[in-house]
Amino acid sequence: MTMLDDIIMDTIGLKQKYGNLTRDNKDLINLNPLQTAGRLTEAAKKVLVEFGDGYSVCDHCKGRLDEIRNPPIYDFVYGDLPKFLGADVTRITSGAREGIFMVLHSLTKPGDVVLMDGNRHYSTYVAAERAGLKIIEVPSSAEPDKLINVEDYGPLIEREKPKLILLTYPDGEFGNLADAKRLGELAKKYNVPYLINGAYAVGRMPISMKELGADFIVGSGHKSMASAGPIGVLGMKKEWEPKVLALSTRHKNKELECLGCTARGSSLMTLMASFPYVVERVKHWDEEVKKAQWFSGEMEKLGGIKQVGQRPHTHDLIKFDTPIFYQISEVHPGKRGFLYDALKNKGIVGLKHGNTKQMKISTYGTPREDLEKVLEVFRTLIDSYKDKIKK
Amino acid sequence: MTMLDDIIMDTIGLKQKYGNLTRDNKDLINLNPLQTAGRLTEAAKKVLVEFGDGYSVCDHCKGRLDEIRNPPIYDFVYGDLPKFLGADVTRITSGAREGIFMVLHSLTKPGDVVLMDGNRHYSTYVAAERAGLKIIEVPSSAEPDKLINVEDYGPLIEREKPKLILLTYPDGEFGNLADAKRLGELAKKYNVPYLINGAYAVGRMPISMKELGADFIVGSGHKSMASAGPIGVLGMKKEWEPKVLALSTRHKNKELECLGCTARGSSLMTLMASFPYVVERVKHWDEEVKKAQWFSGEMEKLGGIKQVGQRPHTHDLIKFDTPIFYQISEVHPGKRGFLYDALKNKGIVGLKHGNTKQMKISTYGTPREDLEKVLEVFRTLIDSYKDKIKK
Repeated sequence: MTMLDDIIMDTIGLKQKYGNLTRDNKDLINLNPLQTAGRLTEAAKKVLVEFGDGYSVCDHCKGRLDEIRNPPIYDFVYGDLPKFLGADVTRITSGAREGIFMVLHSLTKPGDVVLMDGNRHYSTYVAAERAGLKIIEVPSSAEPDKLINVEDYGPLIEREKPKLILLTYPDGEFGNLADAKRLGELAKKYNVPYLINGAYAVGRMPISMKELGADFIVGSGHKSMASAGPIGVLGMKKEWEPKVLALSTRHKNKELECLGCTARGSSLMTLMASFPYVVERVKHWDEEVKKAQWFSGEMEKLGGIKQVGQRPHTHDLIKFDTPIFYQISEVHPGKRGFLYDALKNKGIVGLKHGNTKQMKISTYGTPREDLEKVLEVFRTLIDSYKDKIKK
Repeated sequence: MTMLDDIIMDTIGLKQKYGNLTRDNKDLINLNPLQTAGRLTEAAKKVLVEFGDGYSVCDHCKGRLDEIRNPPIYDFVYGDLPKFLGADVTRITSGAREGIFMVLHSLTKPGDVVLMDGNRHYSTYVAAERAGLKIIEVPSSAEPDKLINVEDYGPLIEREKPKLILLTYPDGEFGNLADAKRLGELAKKYNVPYLINGAYAVGRMPISMKELGADFIVGSGHKSMASAGPIGVLGMKKEWEPKVLALSTRHKNKELECLGCTARGSSLMTLMASFPYVVERVKHWDEEVKKAQWFSGEMEKLGGIKQVGQRPHTHDLIKFDTPIFYQISEVHPGKRGFLYDALKNKGIVGLKHGNTKQMKISTYGTPREDLEKVLEVFRTLIDSYKDKIKK
């Protein structure tokens, strides 16, 4: 046991460091777009502990994660999830980006072209780079709107002959919803497979892959489906199954792009436990949009704040230019951290520490009275400092 | 909101199906090698709920998972984990197989050769197939031993010029521990990178990548590090960092093979919370080996049962030929399910329903008195049926 020497570590010190980790942001008012729709339901919290132990979802596995009947993963993957996504075939993934990579890796070879919107998430770009692809972006319009005109895909498809086109719907920077359905028509016209990154859509708002004319859709459990991370979903048309879910030549029931099984653990159980509530909340999306629009309007009334991105805004993820807060930071004793600190003092989190010129906020699932508290913090700061700032 | 029509689903039915999922195997005596070392510590259970919400580990993220200081992911990835693995550089992955794919995908191009032991897990084969590689296997010896003689790698390296050699240490079928250190010498001699799949080693037994002369090691959190799934670890020598952790050309701090960030969620928190206990338990590996050997001996004393794989056995994962149980199944009213049922009646799980000719058992972390109960079930069955079986 000579190797013991190398691994004798100070376990008392380690227990102090890792043994009692707590989350300081827990149960506060949270504005972080990454987090508002990933909060667990009570059902998900229960199942998280119930299936917490390592490979506990595999108790009754007969060889493949998606075919397990107890817990009812099979029903979920082959019944309810496809219906929810408007897809023929679905799989569980480790997240939206992993789903995108699976599709890119199976449909393309290095050097092929992929066409994506300029508002895409960094991880989409990175997934395409990992697959060795040539990446062409459809630029968005200038600030403040940053709109994607899907008609711009047409000439680029003709010129670049992409193996796949991708749209981020909505994007994670401005919450803009491009005309995904029109892009579905273009995809059909040019006969090019079309993937929707719905990481901020699936689980928040009604979305049907089929109705939008897409070939693929990815969603994120931890971002938008009230699940513990990491977990995602991938939906596709039946015709892509042989390629994207190609089986091993040796291990005949194992899918290559899934490496056999993907999210084999409690995160999948939270996805399933929250699913009925997610299906329910999606039906109330119009209320979320109204609330977002109300919040955006109230923000602009404060003065020195301007919503950027699509107007009227139709998503809970909203970006604001906030020059007034930058001006305040120049004279506030709390300097660039003043805004973060003022919010935190009132039990509000989710803004990046130090950011004052712009902010990205999500109103999803947050009651109006809590959003009033947010507005009140902003209002008080502006009122207190409007006469002190350098104009 | 026309898409609502498509997503109106019966949420009452869904709540019945998914809203209250329970695990029937919870807290029972568990013999499943996949599960014995993945059971959560109390610290892990706490943190699972604490950080259960979606992207909650990202509260204080400044751009990369491994650099987050609160919770102390940075300390873990850059300090304690490398020490534990005997690695220069480590990363968190979604599991052992995902770590293997990261290495294969970054070090090879399609058509290259990879050399692996014939006892490898199916997912290793599938990962290599996904990377488009030509797979050469080093055969194991015949049943019942199924040993890998690492000297057999030498001529195959000379002939096939693999871009990577891989050893499963121990394998997941027989629990055999090949001479990993000698293979490290061969890897050095032939100057070929060497990866150890330690999914059943890291977190159970002392293992140091450096001491074994390996370039890479992967481990599994849900399998052997008392973590919720899915989660894994990857360790490597510094020299491989530029290739395996190559950065995006556009998003300069994002690692391609990680797609930016990997296991972004509560599974990582369980890995960290359990880590001090895992470090501690590894020090008691010799006791686990003694217990496994004792159990194996007691099994053989029952008659009609023979341990296969390496002898004496030095791992808690043990495979047995059990012709006696097959003979009993031929006359038992419970037919092929009799063994599973008899164990389940006594609160013992982890054997595959219907398997009677062979069984794969792990004694890890299970007290001797619980293993006595297992032996008692077997003994009673054999005693009751030994005069009734067809000889």
